[in-house]
Amino acid sequence: MQLAQVAGTVVASRKDEKMVGVRFLVLKDLDLENRPSGGSVIAADPVGADRGEVVIYSKGSSARQTEITRDRPNDAVICGIVDQWEVGGAEKYRKI
Amino acid sequence: MQLAQVAGTVVASRKDEKMVGVRFLVLKDLDLENRPSGGSVIAADPVGADRGEVVIYSKGSSARQTEITRDRPNDAVICGIVDQWEVGGAEKYRKI
Amino acid sequence: MQLAQVAGTVVASRKDEKMVGVRFLVLKDLDLENRPSGGSVIAADPVGADRGEVVIYSKGSSARQTEITRDRPNDAVICGIVDQWEVGGAEKYRKI
Amino acid sequence: MQLAQVAGTVVASRKDEKMVGVRFLVLKDLDLENRPSGGSVIAADPVGADRGEVVIYSKGSSARQTEITRDRPNDAVICGIVDQWEVGGAEKYRKI
Amino acid sequence: MQLAQVAGTVVASRKDEKMVGVRFLVLKDLDLENRPSGGSVIAADPVGADRGEVVIYSKGSSARQTEITRDRPNDAVICGIVDQWEVGGAEKYRKI
Repeated sequence: MQLAQVAGTVVASRKDEKMVGVRFLVLKDLDLENRPSGGSVIAADPVGADRGEVVIYSKGSSARQTEITRDRPNDAVICGIVDQWEVGGAEKYRKI
Repeated sequence: MQLAQVAGTVVASRKDEKMVGVRFLVLKDLDLENRPSGGSVIAADPVGADRGEVVIYSKGSSARQTEITRDRPNDAVICGIVDQWEVGGAEKYRKI
Repeated sequence: MQLAQVAGTVVASRKDEKMVGVRFLVLKDLDLENRPSGGSVIAADPVGADRGEVVIYSKGSSARQTEITRDRPNDAVICGIVDQWEVGGAEKYRKI
Repeated sequence: MQLAQVAGTVVASRKDEKMVGVRFLVLKDLDLENRPSGGSVIAADPVGADRGEVVIYSKGSSARQTEITRDRPNDAVICGIVDQWEVGGAEKYRKI
Repeated sequence: MQLAQVAGTVVASRKDEKMVGVRFLVLKDLDLENRPSGGSVIAADPVGADRGEVVIYSKGSSARQTEITRDRPNDAVICGIVDQWEVGGAEKYRKI
C-alpha cells in the first residue's frame, strides 16, 4: 500500500458497464515525511474518505478485493483512512 | 486508474487469436493539471472513446474485467470517458 | 500494452519445466515517435514475429492468456504485429 | 521480493471491512549495500517483525497468499525476517 | 521477463509458513549489453542456478506458476539459465 491524500474527484458519466456506480477520487501520493511525492492515482473509495484526508490505497488485482470493486476493471482502491503514522518513533502525521 | 487522452490508433492485422476483434487506441498519460506526463499506453476500448477525449484506464489483470477483454492477453483498458475533474476544488478539465 | 521492436533472441536450455518449448524474443521498447525509449523485455511469442518487426506486448498475468503461455511462469507476451500506428492523425510507423 | 527495513507503523481505524485486524508496518526499501534506496511501502506483517529488523516483502497478488492477507485488498506483505545476505561472497548485512 | 545475474543469497530463518523451504537468490538486473542496469530483486530459484550465472526471471503472479512457488507469497522467480543472447545479430553474452 501507499500513503496518499484525497485531493479531488473525477466525473465520468460514460463508463464501462461494470464501472457504473463506482465513485472515483483523485489521490496525491505522499512520502513518509507527509510531503507530496509527485505521483497520483484515480482510486475507487469503499470507505467514504473526505477531501484532505490521508489514506492508504492498494493497486492491481488487490484493488478488486472489496465489495464495491469485485470483478470490476478497477486497479486502485482506498483501504483505510489514516489516523497517524510514525517513522523511527517520530510522528509524521496525525489526523486532527 | 490513470488519466489519459486518446491520441491515436494502432493497427495490427496479425494478432494472437485471442486478440482478434479488439481495437487498440493510443493513450497519452495526463498529470492532474491536464498536461502530458510523458507516458503512454496502448489500451483496449470497451466504451467507444473518440480521439481527443480524456479517459481513465486500468492496467494489469483488472484490464481483463470487461466484456470485450475477458480472458484475453490484454493489460490496459479504458474504464470511462471523463467529463470533469477537480483538485482542491479547482476544476482542471471539463469536456466541451 | 506497449510498442516494441523485435531486436534479438535469448537461448536458455536449462529452464523451469513449465517453460520448456517457449521461445524467447528480446524486445526494445518504442515511444510513440518510433524511437527506442530505453526499456527492454524478454517476451514469449505466440504470433511468430520476425526480427525488426514492431509488435505490441502485454505484461503481468495477461501474459499467460495465450495458448502457448497458459499456466506458465511467463510475464510478457507478444499480442500482435503492428502494421501501422498514428498519433493525432500523423502516421508514425508503417510496416513495409 | 525486495529488501526493506521496518521503519514505523501506520494506524488506520476506519478501514474497508476486509482490512479489519490487519496491522500495517512502514517499510523503507534497501539496496544491496544495505542503504535506503528512497522507496517505501506500507505492508501487512504475518511474521511479527520488529522495528529496525530487515525483511523481504512481496507485492501484488502474491501479497494475498498468506493466512492473514487472503482475499483482502492488500498489495504488500512481509515474507520473512532476514538474518543475512551476501553479494559476490561479501556479507552485506547480518542480524545482530 | 528480465535478464539478471545471480549475485548472492539471502538467509531468512523466520518466514511466513508458506515460504518455508524456498531458497532466495539475489539477482542483479542486466541491460541488453550485459551491464548491470542498477536494479535488483530477490527471487525464488526452481532451476538450481549458480552464482555468476545469467538468468531470466518473471515477476508478479507469474512467479507463482512453478512447482516450488505455487500458492506462495512469492513475486519473483527464475525461469531459466541463459546460454546466449544476441541483439541485432550481435552476440551479447555466451555462457562459458
